Amino acid sequence: MKNIKIAYIGGGSKMWARVFMYDLALTEGLCGEIALYDIDIPAARRNAKIGERLNAHPAAVSRWKYTVCERIEQALDGADFVALSILPGTLDEMAADVHLPEKYGVYQSVGDTVGPGGVMRAMRTVPIYEYFAHSIKQCCPQAWVINLTNPMTVCTRALYDVFPQIKAFGCCHEVFHAQEFLACVAHEQLGVPLPDRREINIDASGINHFTWITEAYYKDVDLLKLLPSFAEKFFREGYCEQKGRGRLDHLGADPFLYGNKVKMELYFRYGALAAAGDRHLVEFMPPEWFLSDPAAAEKWGYHLTGVDFRKKQQAERVAESEQLASGEKEIDLVRSDEECVDLIRALLGETKIISNANVPNAGQTPYLPSGVITETNCVFYRNSVKPVLSSPLPPAAAALVQYNSANTEALYHGIKTRDAEEIFSSFLNQPLLCRLSADSARSLFREMADATQNYLKDYYNLKKF
Amino acid sequence: MKNIKIAYIGGGSKMWARVFMYDLALTEGLCGEIALYDIDIPAARRNAKIGERLNAHPAAVSRWKYTVCERIEQALDGADFVALSILPGTLDEMAADVHLPEKYGVYQSVGDTVGPGGVMRAMRTVPIYEYFAHSIKQCCPQAWVINLTNPMTVCTRALYDVFPQIKAFGCCHEVFHAQEFLACVAHEQLGVPLPDRREINIDASGINHFTWITEAYYKDVDLLKLLPSFAEKFFREGYCEQKGRGRLDHLGADPFLYGNKVKMELYFRYGALAAAGDRHLVEFMPPEWFLSDPAAAEKWGYHLTGVDFRKKQQAERVAESEQLASGEKEIDLVRSDEECVDLIRALLGETKIISNANVPNAGQTPYLPSGVITETNCVFYRNSVKPVLSSPLPPAAAALVQYNSANTEALYHGIKTRDAEEIFSSFLNQPLLCRLSADSARSLFREMADATQNYLKDYYNLKKF
Amino acid sequence: MKNIKIAYIGGGSKMWARVFMYDLALTEGLCGEIALYDIDIPAARRNAKIGERLNAHPAAVSRWKYTVCERIEQALDGADFVALSILPGTLDEMAADVHLPEKYGVYQSVGDTVGPGGVMRAMRTVPIYEYFAHSIKQCCPQAWVINLTNPMTVCTRALYDVFPQIKAFGCCHEVFHAQEFLACVAHEQLGVPLPDRREINIDASGINHFTWITEAYYKDVDLLKLLPSFAEKFFREGYCEQKGRGRLDHLGADPFLYGNKVKMELYFRYGALAAAGDRHLVEFMPPEWFLSDPAAAEKWGYHLTGVDFRKKQQAERVAESEQLASGEKEIDLVRSDEECVDLIRALLGETKIISNANVPNAGQTPYLPSGVITETNCVFYRNSVKPVLSSPLPPAAAALVQYNSANTEALYHGIKTRDAEEIFSSFLNQPLLCRLSADSARSLFREMADATQNYLKDYYNLKKF
Amino acid sequence: MKNIKIAYIGGGSKMWARVFMYDLALTEGLCGEIALYDIDIPAARRNAKIGERLNAHPAAVSRWKYTVCERIEQALDGADFVALSILPGTLDEMAADVHLPEKYGVYQSVGDTVGPGGVMRAMRTVPIYEYFAHSIKQCCPQAWVINLTNPMTVCTRALYDVFPQIKAFGCCHEVFHAQEFLACVAHEQLGVPLPDRREINIDASGINHFTWITEAYYKDVDLLKLLPSFAEKFFREGYCEQKGRGRLDHLGADPFLYGNKVKMELYFRYGALAAAGDRHLVEFMPPEWFLSDPAAAEKWGYHLTGVDFRKKQQAERVAESEQLASGEKEIDLVRSDEECVDLIRALLGETKIISNANVPNAGQTPYLPSGVITETNCVFYRNSVKPVLSSPLPPAAAALVQYNSANTEALYHGIKTRDAEEIFSSFLNQPLLCRLSADSARSLFREMADATQNYLKDYYNLKKF
Repeated sequence: MKNIKIAYIGGGSKMWARVFMYDLALTEGLCGEIALYDIDIPAARRNAKIGERLNAHPAAVSRWKYTVCERIEQALDGADFVALSILPGTLDEMAADVHLPEKYGVYQSVGDTVGPGGVMRAMRTVPIYEYFAHSIKQCCPQAWVINLTNPMTVCTRALYDVFPQIKAFGCCHEVFHAQEFLACVAHEQLGVPLPDRREINIDASGINHFTWITEAYYKDVDLLKLLPSFAEKFFREGYCEQKGRGRLDHLGADPFLYGNKVKMELYFRYGALAAAGDRHLVEFMPPEWFLSDPAAAEKWGYHLTGVDFRKKQQAERVAESEQLASGEKEIDLVRSDEECVDLIRALLGETKIISNANVPNAGQTPYLPSGVITETNCVFYRNSVKPVLSSPLPPAAAALVQYNSANTEALYHGIKTRDAEEIFSSFLNQPLLCRLSADSARSLFREMADATQNYLKDYYNLKKF
Repeated sequence: MKNIKIAYIGGGSKMWARVFMYDLALTEGLCGEIALYDIDIPAARRNAKIGERLNAHPAAVSRWKYTVCERIEQALDGADFVALSILPGTLDEMAADVHLPEKYGVYQSVGDTVGPGGVMRAMRTVPIYEYFAHSIKQCCPQAWVINLTNPMTVCTRALYDVFPQIKAFGCCHEVFHAQEFLACVAHEQLGVPLPDRREINIDASGINHFTWITEAYYKDVDLLKLLPSFAEKFFREGYCEQKGRGRLDHLGADPFLYGNKVKMELYFRYGALAAAGDRHLVEFMPPEWFLSDPAAAEKWGYHLTGVDFRKKQQAERVAESEQLASGEKEIDLVRSDEECVDLIRALLGETKIISNANVPNAGQTPYLPSGVITETNCVFYRNSVKPVLSSPLPPAAAALVQYNSANTEALYHGIKTRDAEEIFSSFLNQPLLCRLSADSARSLFREMADATQNYLKDYYNLKKF
Repeated sequence: MKNIKIAYIGGGSKMWARVFMYDLALTEGLCGEIALYDIDIPAARRNAKIGERLNAHPAAVSRWKYTVCERIEQALDGADFVALSILPGTLDEMAADVHLPEKYGVYQSVGDTVGPGGVMRAMRTVPIYEYFAHSIKQCCPQAWVINLTNPMTVCTRALYDVFPQIKAFGCCHEVFHAQEFLACVAHEQLGVPLPDRREINIDASGINHFTWITEAYYKDVDLLKLLPSFAEKFFREGYCEQKGRGRLDHLGADPFLYGNKVKMELYFRYGALAAAGDRHLVEFMPPEWFLSDPAAAEKWGYHLTGVDFRKKQQAERVAESEQLASGEKEIDLVRSDEECVDLIRALLGETKIISNANVPNAGQTPYLPSGVITETNCVFYRNSVKPVLSSPLPPAAAALVQYNSANTEALYHGIKTRDAEEIFSSFLNQPLLCRLSADSARSLFREMADATQNYLKDYYNLKKF
Repeated sequence: MKNIKIAYIGGGSKMWARVFMYDLALTEGLCGEIALYDIDIPAARRNAKIGERLNAHPAAVSRWKYTVCERIEQALDGADFVALSILPGTLDEMAADVHLPEKYGVYQSVGDTVGPGGVMRAMRTVPIYEYFAHSIKQCCPQAWVINLTNPMTVCTRALYDVFPQIKAFGCCHEVFHAQEFLACVAHEQLGVPLPDRREINIDASGINHFTWITEAYYKDVDLLKLLPSFAEKFFREGYCEQKGRGRLDHLGADPFLYGNKVKMELYFRYGALAAAGDRHLVEFMPPEWFLSDPAAAEKWGYHLTGVDFRKKQQAERVAESEQLASGEKEIDLVRSDEECVDLIRALLGETKIISNANVPNAGQTPYLPSGVITETNCVFYRNSVKPVLSSPLPPAAAALVQYNSANTEALYHGIKTRDAEEIFSSFLNQPLLCRLSADSARSLFREMADATQNYLKDYYNLKKF
């Protein structure tokens, strides 16, 4: 039985913290303290109460001490693991990120990674992450830090830039969905029962939310070679890995679902399978390709995730949390498909896992420069996350990744130096904005910055815009 | 007196060969043979006759033996220097390159480097350059090879790819124009007489026709710092380095002139001065920025160079060549501003020159991968061209160069492997095409390939398009 | 049941081929052809007969068709896997490699990797490997090639240099012995039953026979931290992973055993655990450290492996092979500890294995240049061998590896260009020769080359030496 | 007339400061302040007085204000240039560095760069340089910093490590001597008058005091090709670039002279010309080659520079300084062959110079890792020192440089982390010590550290040695 301390920054999280706590409760061999820190202290307290209910749950196999910390240092001191999972600003800021550009004819399906929304969110987030990195260096320099916050690339970049010896990685499940999609391909084309995603062995590389699969095997079968015949059957109506074929028209209720049409189309254009949800992928390319307007989204089988929906969802989750905390609602304790807890076990030496993670490039992604944050397979084992060298990506697809990575570096550099002009240069470079003139782009930048100024004005001089 | 053999491939050239011969005739200390090879043998003969007239010219200080070779091996055998200066295909092909895309709303100001025209031209040129490289390896592996043909980057890339030990570099005068523009800045802002461009010391890096100046000094004065005040005076009407201020409306007669408004604008966006003619620069970026339509070109102070103009110009040059060859017209023997002959002298050990050249990246452009062709300063001296490490480019500008370089690599890889699908992937990635859907792009590609099929069909399987 | 063809080059091997055949016979799920090629055809025939006896053995779980090929192309055509396991020259040449330097006061414990013997052996081997690479490119370019021959580094280097697309790796068990030694450390210091070497999770990097372990865990226990207390108990008398403690004085009978005193000593000097047998390690460093003379070897608890012993051993193995082939002797069919067959299964998609392999550096060994052959962990899976990025090696140990790697590159370059002077430069640089003047080194080189000239004279001009 | 402030740290220097002041006095177009800082304040005052005499000297063309600063910040504040030229410790410490190893049979010809003496000197110097770097960062972050102190590589490394944005380079004249030697080769073999060293165009790369010339031209003549015939005539008796042929036996009076026999021998072994004085070169290689004992030094035509000689020389220089300061002795105002002042002029934009400098590797030395300090040609111009990419070094010579560079990195890392064990690992790795057992090396290390403990004890825990 290993006794560990986990600091959860953003411990009032309405969703991720709960999933994490459930998974921990179902994991044998571990115990210790989960220190919840959040600027929303009542939310952290709510999660602590849910934690106590978990301890009492008959299905739980491990028990944890849940503490709520009012200062981040309290949470971090002596931590063995740190989870970072925050919302930079509120959903009002996110609404500005996502919807303000619409009046310039610029649509975003997610708006938290790249594009105009991604830039603004990065501007809000990086200063916070610089503070996190300093605090970790001070309080728990040996801890393993798991970042779950978007924009993943710049968050992880800031951690390593401020504290180069940090043991951090970014953890994202988008690649899993591509594995699930490939499991469907195996199922449909080989006539085997739907395999578990872990049976789909892949090689992938790129940057978070724009990762590409270059190899995919189910046992010794090359699944990428089966894609053409699969697409012949399913491309028209799409194929959602969670809902199966022919359901695209019924996806309306859930803005997170999509029919993988973008993914299949990109495979035909570039010869590699993009490995994130279609809603993420489309934001890395010129709008004319898949995101010229809402109709294009529907045509390509995915939805624009409006922030109104997110607000509604958040309210529901808060309500549910309260019910779970008070006992009004029963906890349905099941293991999620998230991997965080498995990775923690591996880092403790219990298992060895090969899975995707976001860390600085040290050669694992040969087509990206050294030091930029890249997502590839890594070997997780006792106190180490070691990248595995990835196989070649077709050069035209690599060019798209290189551009977005380079532009994210430019954005990060501008944010780090608090240079609004340099940030704007990278804003202008965003593929989603390539239909705007520089004047329109400047005007949009100004409007967006104004709308979220409460979270920016302490860091940037935006007056001249 | 050094006795050397120079092979001029494309020796029927209507313009460049003549300039080169004039400059040689005015260079002391050299003599030998100039072997002219061209598939247009009469044109080569015409140039040889002009050469003989040069030998008789009273101002000439060196005399050369001019030979016309029917086979390339004859020209290359024993050559000390090889100049490569060809037109891949005819101006009819170039007309297809430049004007076919217009019906898709895609305009090009030059059409020979990137964009749809650049791709087609690369497809025609690379197989020829592969042949050149093999021939040079066979006939004169120790010769210095000077490439003058566009698209510069892929041509030079092919030479090194086929024959890695080749001593080749790409030579382009576009950076000189930026130096001349900076000389104007010095003149206007410092009140000094217009300096010679060689007095403007610059550092530059990037890829041919999309190179950026990161440092510029006239004596110890930092010229980049003078740009804002210069632009305040001259941005509105533009400032042509050849015509001076206030002449933008009078440039109509010469489609090669421009007012440097794009260059100034890019300086304000990115903090570095793009170092090629504005007409070239605009093709590397989304059309909405500077090239959405012909009106945008006029607004930004440059012209679209139509191929009708080029045809007319070519006819005039042929006529002039004939007159010069026959003696009907006097040779006006003056030194050009081109540097080829100076570089040859340096490579022979007569001088040491620092100037820009296109060679494989070995670290001189830190933000580009090793091996891609890049343009930076190099030291030219006795039997060597040594790149000088370039200073940092602001990251958002670097991102644009990285993207175009990466996409050119993808294009080259597709051409090298004769993989039409891969070529098309890089075509789709062209910034100038970012307003097209994939379907439109495919249809455009097909039309352009059809129109120039005589030069493509031996190399590529284009049936499926 | 997978049907595959394996070409075994050096198929008359007295030892390795037999081990390989036994292991295959004990592996379920595979069948097919094993094509034995050797310049010693009777030896290959003998092995084929043993193979037939294996097919009839009651414990065998897979059956193979054994063929003897008189031409290498017959063996390679259509092969899925190629094992390369040859003796370059005869043991007479090896005797010259190992013992001639003794009269110059230079002793070697193995003499097949670096040092004067390693240089001569490389000179004999590389031209053969160039031929292998050409043949593989011709006959089976998609086959996986497993090199087992020493000198491992230059052999693998030649394969990739001649045929860059080759799918080859070098396979060596020396690291396993270090794992076994660490299993002993776990056993002695933790009081647990002796773990299997596969339970010792390590990270290692370097060059073959001079690899270093930077991390070693048994479950979550850091074994490197236990080394000081282990050494306190066992350093004086040594600790052989095969014989246990206190047996060093009894190792005399087996020149391959050693007491790991060199390994422990290097750990104290450099803070990382060298991961090959002590007899190999000592050849990479100045002789004064561990190999000044035979007495030093005994003092450091290992033996010099004389070639007389090897000749005797070879004769015994031939005799044994004949008995096994004729049925005079029973086959004792047990699984070896070698991994070749496991790796083949992984490459076929049956399992996923992380183990050490020698491949070109693509970043996995950060302190070595790109392209040199390096040994690190790799992930073996369906049709791929992907290096895992290795953890930092203390810089003073890294310097020793860098030097030996660089000098091996120099040696390889000299051999590749058949430049005897350049080969000699690298000979002079050998750590084991650092006590010789240049004149003595030259004289030794000449004597060694003379003694093995039958295998050299077709490739090198050695007259001037 | 440019008005600048130069801080001279080590401004009491008995030799270098004076040379620098003389050169400045003879340089037109500059004026300003020279701020002398030294822990030996009287020595700095003496130099200031000499400076005042220079101002009054009829041949002087520039006048300077000489100030003596008691605190380093006073010297650095507002400085445009900083010269660093210190003696770490006294000549008593240097005597321990150079002569203590002799009782272990280890001789050193200089003892200030590598070898046991270089290690000890580095241990004393780096902490001081860390302080310099911090002070420069604080007081004059934009100043150009010229390092003149040995060990050059670690000093420059420390400056960049502590303050990565520093504008620093290491300046050393050893390469000039190799140019002068090549001027002699041109003179003897071509029959031309002895050329100025600046007419010998070279390419060189490596690490300070172990740099190698890969190209050398006098006009268009390849001087390296003339070396064999030159050596045939002069190798036996040596050829000193300052004294000419046949004088080797008369060099006894001056321990800094040498006959270039080592240099010629290395050229024959490696095919490139080592480009530092022979006395420096020999310390980078095994002692058996050139430095087994004092007799070997004489045989190879160079001298061991004993510290008694240095003490005597220092006393003479102090006496001379006093006489110059008091006016007792006339100042013989002539320009030296040092380049510092020329480089300052270039950095001010007055000229453009290509010369050798020590800066972090950014690709200019392809066979060394990024970031290590390397010496190559650089372009010096207005506010920039830009490395020129160097040509290939034969790989066996490169291996020697790689090793010494790697080991110097290990040494620096050990010093930076104040880790005596790691320092000792690199000590053990010193080529000059390769004839010692580890035990002897440890004992020597202990003795040397004891003898210089006053300068070490504040930084390192050396008790356990």
